Amino acid sequence: MNRDLVYGRRPVRELHRAGKRQILELLVTERALSAEPWLREVPGLRLQVVPERRLNDAADSRDHQGVVAFTEPYRYADAHSLAEGDRPLIVCLDQVTDPHNLGAVVRSAEGAGASGVVITERNAARVTAAVVKASAGAVEHVPVAVVVNLGRYLEEIKGPALWTWAATSDAQTPVWSADLQTGAALVFGAEGKGLRPGVRRSCDDAFTIPLGGSVESLNVSVAAGVALFEAARQRRSA
Amino acid sequence: MNRDLVYGRRPVRELHRAGKRQILELLVTERALSAEPWLREVPGLRLQVVPERRLNDAADSRDHQGVVAFTEPYRYADAHSLAEGDRPLIVCLDQVTDPHNLGAVVRSAEGAGASGVVITERNAARVTAAVVKASAGAVEHVPVAVVVNLGRYLEEIKGPALWTWAATSDAQTPVWSADLQTGAALVFGAEGKGLRPGVRRSCDDAFTIPLGGSVESLNVSVAAGVALFEAARQRRSA
Repeated sequence: MNRDLVYGRRPVRELHRAGKRQILELLVTERALSAEPWLREVPGLRLQVVPERRLNDAADSRDHQGVVAFTEPYRYADAHSLAEGDRPLIVCLDQVTDPHNLGAVVRSAEGAGASGVVITERNAARVTAAVVKASAGAVEHVPVAVVVNLGRYLEEIKGPALWTWAATSDAQTPVWSADLQTGAALVFGAEGKGLRPGVRRSCDDAFTIPLGGSVESLNVSVAAGVALFEAARQRRSA
Repeated sequence: MNRDLVYGRRPVRELHRAGKRQILELLVTERALSAEPWLREVPGLRLQVVPERRLNDAADSRDHQGVVAFTEPYRYADAHSLAEGDRPLIVCLDQVTDPHNLGAVVRSAEGAGASGVVITERNAARVTAAVVKASAGAVEHVPVAVVVNLGRYLEEIKGPALWTWAATSDAQTPVWSADLQTGAALVFGAEGKGLRPGVRRSCDDAFTIPLGGSVESLNVSVAAGVALFEAARQRRSA
């Protein structure tokens, strides 16, 4: 049976709290078990207290904070279902490869109350243990979907109630002048490459986060965070 | 002589563009040299074309994109000078240890037109090669200062024209209701730990970035980015 690796105290706690996929095996250090008593309350699992070294091997990382879980595989959402409902707010990432950036975007999306995150099938990070960790476990709470063709997906979901927005450095509209109160898909490209032209053409309009200095762009997870919370600001005051 | 390591195409380009510290030695691959013709224009330096392997050793990283420079040491700014001038906007990080987070914060600060970034002397990331890389070279353009006692620094700079703001998860004021149009120092704690009580007490007031989901906090570089561009939004429309 396929199983996924999840490590880190918060990620495993959120995995448990969300209850969407079963924890098959849980390896913890003595120290983590004293610090995180909820670990004993996870029902029906095989809890093993092991030395730190075993965890380094199991996680293939030293970033586990004494807690490593093996779980049912991550279940990706249906991308089209994210566009349903009232005033959806979707983040789309065009070939973003850095797991820390994907994790931070999912975390921000969850915090901003977004409908979900859409990633591309090719040349992109998937939900790995490093992504779950960088998301602080938010991947367990907010849907993440994979699409083969992001341009086509945007064409299919857009309409009067769902505007598709490209985040670009050369757009005229600052993000705080973009109307994000209706349904919106916010589309971000990979760092250094930006959006592919076909994806850009599938967007109704574009906004920019105005930069005053010498550097040409923001970290993609910061750019997504700024736009997501600008949407939250606009929707809150609506 | 002490010298600093800087690697990556954008970081070394910004190092050269800013012209604040001399490049003492520049190692590049054949491929990077064809892709980045400006490398030949850097005056008076010892440019050496070397195999990839030599760069891995010199950088002690594979993250160099074919360009490694040795430069004069990074010059930290005077923290108090950041508080001078009209309507300063300062980001303070209380014991943030992750170099990627520090780099991304400096990058956002530069883009948002902030006066500078203040970091703590102990238990915190300094401006290393990994930070320069994560900042996309922004550390060469925006001042970074180190303080021994962040609480005392905040007490010293605060006044009617400079408000000190703690970013916390339990504040009542959403960031978009905080008046960031006057001078402001925005103070962020380390992930998982938050602000130390002494630092929190040195702040005039606190704001929060309202979160709607299950996860309790944002990545610190995303939180700083959201607050910095909220300040930019308020100042733009002022």
